[in-house]
Amino acid sequence: MFEGVQVELKMTKSDDMELGMTTKRIESLTDGIYSIAMTLLVLNLALPGIGTGLMPAIELHELLFRQTHEFLNYVLSFILLAIFWNRHHQQFHFIKRTDPTHLWINIFILMFVAMVPFSTSLMGDYPDETIAKLFFGLNLFILGSLNALSWMYATKDHRLVDRGLDPRHITVGLRRGAVIPVIVLVAMVLSLITPHWSSCVYLSIPIILAHPWFRHTKHGK
Amino acid sequence: MFEGVQVELKMTKSDDMELGMTTKRIESLTDGIYSIAMTLLVLNLALPGIGTGLMPAIELHELLFRQTHEFLNYVLSFILLAIFWNRHHQQFHFIKRTDPTHLWINIFILMFVAMVPFSTSLMGDYPDETIAKLFFGLNLFILGSLNALSWMYATKDHRLVDRGLDPRHITVGLRRGAVIPVIVLVAMVLSLITPHWSSCVYLSIPIILAHPWFRHTKHGK
Amino acid sequence: MFEGVQVELKMTKSDDMELGMTTKRIESLTDGIYSIAMTLLVLNLALPGIGTGLMPAIELHELLFRQTHEFLNYVLSFILLAIFWNRHHQQFHFIKRTDPTHLWINIFILMFVAMVPFSTSLMGDYPDETIAKLFFGLNLFILGSLNALSWMYATKDHRLVDRGLDPRHITVGLRRGAVIPVIVLVAMVLSLITPHWSSCVYLSIPIILAHPWFRHTKHGK
Amino acid sequence: MFEGVQVELKMTKSDDMELGMTTKRIESLTDGIYSIAMTLLVLNLALPGIGTGLMPAIELHELLFRQTHEFLNYVLSFILLAIFWNRHHQQFHFIKRTDPTHLWINIFILMFVAMVPFSTSLMGDYPDETIAKLFFGLNLFILGSLNALSWMYATKDHRLVDRGLDPRHITVGLRRGAVIPVIVLVAMVLSLITPHWSSCVYLSIPIILAHPWFRHTKHGK
Repeated sequence: MFEGVQVELKMTKSDDMELGMTTKRIESLTDGIYSIAMTLLVLNLALPGIGTGLMPAIELHELLFRQTHEFLNYVLSFILLAIFWNRHHQQFHFIKRTDPTHLWINIFILMFVAMVPFSTSLMGDYPDETIAKLFFGLNLFILGSLNALSWMYATKDHRLVDRGLDPRHITVGLRRGAVIPVIVLVAMVLSLITPHWSSCVYLSIPIILAHPWFRHTKHGK
Repeated sequence: MFEGVQVELKMTKSDDMELGMTTKRIESLTDGIYSIAMTLLVLNLALPGIGTGLMPAIELHELLFRQTHEFLNYVLSFILLAIFWNRHHQQFHFIKRTDPTHLWINIFILMFVAMVPFSTSLMGDYPDETIAKLFFGLNLFILGSLNALSWMYATKDHRLVDRGLDPRHITVGLRRGAVIPVIVLVAMVLSLITPHWSSCVYLSIPIILAHPWFRHTKHGK
Repeated sequence: MFEGVQVELKMTKSDDMELGMTTKRIESLTDGIYSIAMTLLVLNLALPGIGTGLMPAIELHELLFRQTHEFLNYVLSFILLAIFWNRHHQQFHFIKRTDPTHLWINIFILMFVAMVPFSTSLMGDYPDETIAKLFFGLNLFILGSLNALSWMYATKDHRLVDRGLDPRHITVGLRRGAVIPVIVLVAMVLSLITPHWSSCVYLSIPIILAHPWFRHTKHGK
Repeated sequence: MFEGVQVELKMTKSDDMELGMTTKRIESLTDGIYSIAMTLLVLNLALPGIGTGLMPAIELHELLFRQTHEFLNYVLSFILLAIFWNRHHQQFHFIKRTDPTHLWINIFILMFVAMVPFSTSLMGDYPDETIAKLFFGLNLFILGSLNALSWMYATKDHRLVDRGLDPRHITVGLRRGAVIPVIVLVAMVLSLITPHWSSCVYLSIPIILAHPWFRHTKHGK
């Protein structure tokens, strides 16, 4: 029995050696980029006129009040990035190896993650502009679609997951992957009619994803 | 005896597999966001007028001197963030697993961690404004309360900690959790009277937390 | 056989102890700097005039359209940094230890990685200037050359890699190392003639590196 | 022999459990803050007038040339931060546990690490001002002194290092700790006479630290 363990260890090691492709590398870059993107969101809160002496101090509560929209956008984008980060970790919990195609899908995901602070700043600077909402929506739509693509690629024929992975996990992952692009499309269509309130639609994402139908839960005992 | 070890390893692995919820994921994001928030604080030190050529070079010592308040705020916020980061690690030392509710409490904690550089910049730009102090205080109050909530949730019925965890650790954690919100409330009330000096109250936090009553110390030998 | 394992563990440990030089330390700093540099690229996308109220909201689609060049530069630099990050990980997959010379080559690599957002901003602000393209090219050329040097230093006489490392991996690493400096030189020469389009040459890098001749593939079974 | 291994594992675990103080936590925060501070240095390179349209494109080579001083400061601060980061890792290679005092010394170290981009920007904006050089020097002096203090605290009576640690390593660590504060004092004195060139003194730090007298080398075979 002990020899069996040793052989297993050796196989894992030599396999790594040849392919040079573990998921650990992409995971550390991902955690770094998510944490920076989420923290850079705060730069959008900067009060206009600060440091220039143009605004008298007496108006501070007024200034902060006018920023309400920016605060809401901050909360929204922070939560959305946290949802994507969460999905990434759920997927990589099951994904055991990577290959160049999968690696590059994930680098493109990161490219659109890093763009979220910019899209959010657009929404804050142009609160009533449909085009700002569409840009933000497009960013999320591409992010969500690439995320779904990454899971589809990894699970096709059990390519990058364990042979023995319960197919229900694969199905749940595909369902979860569809939620974000669909909701984003709804929000984008709605922004054509009422740009100011269309972002509220995004708040349904965490609610929908919390439904048991979309969760990797323990089946049976 | 050796077989016992193997069985234990297998159990841990299959448990992870099913729940997909280890604490490692939230820990790496947390370390990332804390380190960025703590480093972004330095951007508040930027001298007004730098790069615009509006200030003659001869006034540099004067300019730096006028920044004293900003330097003190930098030190204060850096220490406060370090205390929260420290508390996070102390809690996660005992927390062995996570669930969606716990994960989201922690993501909201990170949302208010990332907001600290903004709150600090408000205090620096409006040093004598009560509203700036209240905003900073509110940020810390929510942060401290969520932190206490996270511990309460995790330790209720030993939900996310080891069954065998010494109840004294749980009690100490609850006591530590109460310190920050209470001190912050005192500082906020004081800022209504004397905004300029109210921040000094925060310096009592590390002193109080250093008291044995609030420490996870070795009991007995 | 079991004693053999133990001896191996001990040797690794005492070896570390004496030299104080594991590669893990440089890897965590590297992942941090790459993720920050890649995320800072997004700051170059900031619309001119935002927050100043100088631009009427009606021109937003126009403003975004004018930024097309900045978006392309963002994508280009993000992909190039991802390629360099990927190469770093491929090299460190084989590199088992480090020494002060190797450590400092890698710190100089990081110095030029952190400079990429600045070089990219130059290209965005001066799209038709040969000098901006040459600066960007020079940055990449030094980065690519240091990267090749790092591999040459590490593999010379199997200095920092396993004795038993297949020489084909060393050769492939050297070939990969030559690709980027050569392509960069072509782009720099081209920028003397047509600065506006010369950056397109960089897109050939991922295509060339995907060729089997440049890949660490499994040989035989 | 096998039981001996198991007992050792158990002891480590219960020891951690009680003290709640491993060095891993401070190491991940440290790597994060160093990598961000090193990357933020690049923000000091931003060309004045970029994005405002005030500078005609024709002057770009002139603008870049005028930035020579900023480029040199970037290289200098990047190398100095890399030296401090390197020292941190060398120390933590030997430090096996931490306590609240040691943890807080290290948090104060990070506070002055995060301040380096600001000190560097001062030197860049006021190249001929003694006060800017003194500020930068003071930042490094405190950083170097706290770093030496951290080693002194940890090795006093083998407090946080292995009982069996070769005393030569402790002595070498103390010697290395003295180098930076001494060199910084020389540079600060020199800046009173010739501010423009005094920074060159810092370049002697890596040369001195490379001397065998200051290296943790293998003794004997």
